[in-house]
Amino acid sequence: MLAALALAQSIEKGELTPVDVIEQCAAAIAAREPEIAAFTVLAPETAQRQTNAATIHLADQPLRGLPVAIKDIFDTADLPTQYGSAIYAGHQPKADAAVVSMVRRTGGFVIGKTVTTEFAHLQPGRTRNPRQPAHTPGGSSSGSAAAVAAGMVPIAIGSQTGGSVIRPAAFCGVTGFKPSYKLLPTVGMKCFSWHLDTVGVFAARVVDVAFATAAICGRDLTVGPPGAVPRLAVVRTHVWTKASEDMQAAVETAARAAAAAGAHVTELTLPPVFEAAFAAHPVIQDYEAFRAFAFEYDHYRDDLGPQLRALLDHAASITAEQYDAARHRTHQARRALADLSDGYDAFLTPSAPGAAPLGLDSTGSPIFNRLWTLMGTPCVNVTGLTDASGLPLGVQIVGRFGRDRSALEVAQFLEDAIRRTV
Amino acid sequence: MLAALALAQSIEKGELTPVDVIEQCAAAIAAREPEIAAFTVLAPETAQRQTNAATIHLADQPLRGLPVAIKDIFDTADLPTQYGSAIYAGHQPKADAAVVSMVRRTGGFVIGKTVTTEFAHLQPGRTRNPRQPAHTPGGSSSGSAAAVAAGMVPIAIGSQTGGSVIRPAAFCGVTGFKPSYKLLPTVGMKCFSWHLDTVGVFAARVVDVAFATAAICGRDLTVGPPGAVPRLAVVRTHVWTKASEDMQAAVETAARAAAAAGAHVTELTLPPVFEAAFAAHPVIQDYEAFRAFAFEYDHYRDDLGPQLRALLDHAASITAEQYDAARHRTHQARRALADLSDGYDAFLTPSAPGAAPLGLDSTGSPIFNRLWTLMGTPCVNVTGLTDASGLPLGVQIVGRFGRDRSALEVAQFLEDAIRRTV
Repeated sequence: MLAALALAQSIEKGELTPVDVIEQCAAAIAAREPEIAAFTVLAPETAQRQTNAATIHLADQPLRGLPVAIKDIFDTADLPTQYGSAIYAGHQPKADAAVVSMVRRTGGFVIGKTVTTEFAHLQPGRTRNPRQPAHTPGGSSSGSAAAVAAGMVPIAIGSQTGGSVIRPAAFCGVTGFKPSYKLLPTVGMKCFSWHLDTVGVFAARVVDVAFATAAICGRDLTVGPPGAVPRLAVVRTHVWTKASEDMQAAVETAARAAAAAGAHVTELTLPPVFEAAFAAHPVIQDYEAFRAFAFEYDHYRDDLGPQLRALLDHAASITAEQYDAARHRTHQARRALADLSDGYDAFLTPSAPGAAPLGLDSTGSPIFNRLWTLMGTPCVNVTGLTDASGLPLGVQIVGRFGRDRSALEVAQFLEDAIRRTV
Repeated sequence: MLAALALAQSIEKGELTPVDVIEQCAAAIAAREPEIAAFTVLAPETAQRQTNAATIHLADQPLRGLPVAIKDIFDTADLPTQYGSAIYAGHQPKADAAVVSMVRRTGGFVIGKTVTTEFAHLQPGRTRNPRQPAHTPGGSSSGSAAAVAAGMVPIAIGSQTGGSVIRPAAFCGVTGFKPSYKLLPTVGMKCFSWHLDTVGVFAARVVDVAFATAAICGRDLTVGPPGAVPRLAVVRTHVWTKASEDMQAAVETAARAAAAAGAHVTELTLPPVFEAAFAAHPVIQDYEAFRAFAFEYDHYRDDLGPQLRALLDHAASITAEQYDAARHRTHQARRALADLSDGYDAFLTPSAPGAAPLGLDSTGSPIFNRLWTLMGTPCVNVTGLTDASGLPLGVQIVGRFGRDRSALEVAQFLEDAIRRTV
């Protein structure tokens, strides 16, 4: 994989130019893209930019001219944007989404758009898992995770409404970072659920997502050594039995590694309010989706995939009272989480039920992600563990709302600890 | 003005057809629009729909086929959408905004798009105030307020980020309703500030905005007689001295009228945390606008009006730390508001510093609205009072977050009380 931070530092030192990195990406894309199918479209100027002096000047910007792939759920003014749906075939937005403009504004080079499931829901796209092409890359940010995993780009942007950043990151063995809700703007992203949609970032390692996110949003997310011993709680949640034996073992291994590296590791059983919140997630998501997709549902229902059509058919009957009750349960859980979190820097929990499932008909399950999306907390998929076949087993660090730097520091600590023990 | 609820009831009873109402609106538009300039575009089928049998079937839907005007800050798939900016001249979105689809889905007839200030900021459009055409209609929802005030439509949709619903409603002498934050979705609305943008509704009286909002969002907002004596607090806020003598007198008159009608009326001085929150509003708004308008600012800076360009020039230097601090002050004020509100059903405060200012170069000041937009509380401009020249003086009911029906009931109570005393 391409290490974003190291590449940026090499460019800063003058050891590499942005053109060198674009050439490296173009070569990797030529080699891997035919099999992986991570992209919907590549920037037509990719080749030309290699000789374009303008690219050099990006070297002075925070992103140092690094290529960034953008999930095709974000509008781009210069590249078609289809949201994974036939309804938007050939659609060309007028403007860039806010995060796309922020990538360009901070010196990123938008190298192409990546495959999303249909409207970032469940209907898979064409992308294969670079770790094992017969397995799903996960979704909905399938192409963004795969493009990083295949070494085609150092940075990719995705989004999560259920588990669409952390799950594909786990399946593809890359670092996925879902920041706190609204840390990165969703303006110009096709909306699924306005209380849940969250912009996320993919890169090779924790230092790389921290570097990329910090550069894009202008915040200090420098991941240094933890100032104090990290206090980590293993949180199994009420869906723990849905995790494979491999995944359960991976979480135990990660916990032991963290403890061996000096972390204070305990266990925490979540009170019932979180199971209620977990059940509230689809109520909020689907009620909002019925309104967010009102135009598509009312005019193009037959052009929707069967899963999204069924979701919206059902969502039509969710009442405002049910939605309000789900929102109320969410607030209760957030308050409970704030109280619980006082004793911990982060939670450790699975990123997904297991390794990437065999087959491309499903992108896997978001059951280990929904609660944290709903809570709005920063989440990081931490890499380094695998199953017997070599497929990645991602474990998840869940930080405290608004403390994204701390979440990344704990994730970095865990990543180091895992790499020292396996 | 056209009374939405009464028209809907007449249609329900078969005394009127939707076609009759469209004809009535078309006649009013023919008579008033040349002077008022409330619309950017009218639905081309407005005339044809008068003989279209399909319109008749809308009579069975919640909105009963009533014409609805849409602020040109919301995307429409069948009508050009320019956001009040030359940058988007001739722009034709692919899809309807969510609230537009919800209007159509519930049996509303989208009769046209209404003038907005540039990107819903301060640069005025062409619209004149129907009460006195030499005066501003207010902004940014200038055309929506004016279209209702001129009797051209019974219902109009607008939006508020600072004071863009309540202020033009007050200046034009119509009822404006800014529901709780996110009660109506902003999906497909041009974003200015994602923590502040709120969709609102204009109609003649409180019962009319309640009817229209309830129909559109499928909630019960029936405005009946208050179950108990309304507890009303007169809240002058720290900008009280910026209100004209006329406006100060109007608030006192409204308070006396409410007391005379049986309300429990007291005074409440807001603690300093609200002055801090007031100061936080522009920090949040401008920081987010610099990202929401990143594409326009980075590519079309010279095509922005001088006020928005200056705002964004300044906003570039707002740091994440300043933004986070402003968000923190907001949370503190919201908590303080929840504690304060236990003793009251609603606050009574000015809708604007005074009546509509003379001239069309400015849309007036949002200083009596910003705090409540930031708090996310339901707000209603209540009509019935005027200055010596006959210009409307709007007073504002501010309800509790999520209790929109209660806010409307208190507003209805006050509207009745005012009409009994003046």
